[in-house]
Amino acid sequence: MLAIGIDPGTATTGFGLVRESESGDLEAVDWGVILTPAKAPAAERLGQIFDELNEILEKHKPQTAGVEELFFQRNVSTAIAVGQARGVVLLALQRAGLPVFDYNPKEIKQTITGYGGADKAQMQSMVRTLLELPEIPKPDDAADALAVAICHLHLAKYNTILQQGGK
Amino acid sequence: MLAIGIDPGTATTGFGLVRESESGDLEAVDWGVILTPAKAPAAERLGQIFDELNEILEKHKPQTAGVEELFFQRNVSTAIAVGQARGVVLLALQRAGLPVFDYNPKEIKQTITGYGGADKAQMQSMVRTLLELPEIPKPDDAADALAVAICHLHLAKYNTILQQGGK
Repeated sequence: MLAIGIDPGTATTGFGLVRESESGDLEAVDWGVILTPAKAPAAERLGQIFDELNEILEKHKPQTAGVEELFFQRNVSTAIAVGQARGVVLLALQRAGLPVFDYNPKEIKQTITGYGGADKAQMQSMVRTLLELPEIPKPDDAADALAVAICHLHLAKYNTILQQGGK
Repeated sequence: MLAIGIDPGTATTGFGLVRESESGDLEAVDWGVILTPAKAPAAERLGQIFDELNEILEKHKPQTAGVEELFFQRNVSTAIAVGQARGVVLLALQRAGLPVFDYNPKEIKQTITGYGGADKAQMQSMVRTLLELPEIPKPDDAADALAVAICHLHLAKYNTILQQGGK
C-alpha cells in the first residue's frame, strides 16, 4: 500500500509518500515541498500547487491519501488562505480517484509518538526512526507530511481490522 | 465586457454574469447557484463546484471575474471550509485564463448602494434596479454574486480611468 500524506499551505505544501509492505515495514518513497512565490496572485499560486501535486500523483500513483486538518489556526484570514490551498489539494486527490482521509495534528502526534502533546523534535525523531532514515527528513513540512502518511497507513489498517471483526 | 461574480461556499456557491455595454448599460446574462449535497465528502463537493463552474465558464466565456472575500467569518472551521470552496473557484478561473479580483462585503455594499453598512434587502433592491430586472433575483447567493459582478465592472472601469489619467 502506497500512501501520500499532505500538509497543505499557500506558501509551502509538504508531501510525503510512504509504502507499507505486507509484513508492515514502512519505506519512505519520496518527500518534499511545493513552494509558491509570495508575490504571485493567489489564483496563480493555487494553480501551481494543483499542477505540481498532479505531477507527483502521476509519477508515484499512490493508492490512498491523508491530509492534515487545520483546526488550530487562530487567525481567520490565515485559515481562509490555508483552506484555499487545502481545496485545490483535495480536488487534485479527488481527480486522481484517491480516497482522502483527514487527520488533525493531535491525532497525528498521538499515532506517531503515542502522545498527543509531543513537540516537533519528538515527532521528527519518530518519523526518522519509523522510516529507518539516516537523518531527519527536511524541510519540516515534508517531515510533517511523512508523519501524516504514516498516521494514515496505521489508522487505515486499524479501521480495516475493526471492520473485519479482528482483535 | 462580460464579468462573472462569484460568492463561494461549500454548500452553495452563487454565480452571476453581467454584461456592460459600451454606453455603460448593465444586463444580467445568467445567474444561479451551485449546490452540493451536505452528506458527500468534502473532496467530492469541491469536485462538483469545480466541474459546474467550468461548465458555466465554457458556456458564457466571461472576460473578467470578481470573487467575494470572506474576512468576516468568525468561526475558523467555517473559514477553512469556505476557503476550500474559494480555492477551487480561483483555480477554475485561473485555468480559464481570467483575471481575478477580490472584493470584501463592505466594498461591494459601498459600490452598489453607496453605503458600506447597507442591509441585504437594500442590496437586493439595488441589484434589481441596476440590472432592470422585473423581480429581485433568487436565490440570495445568486443575487449576491450579481452584486459582486456589478461591483467588479464598476471598480474595474474606475481603475482603468485612473490609469489613463482621466478624471
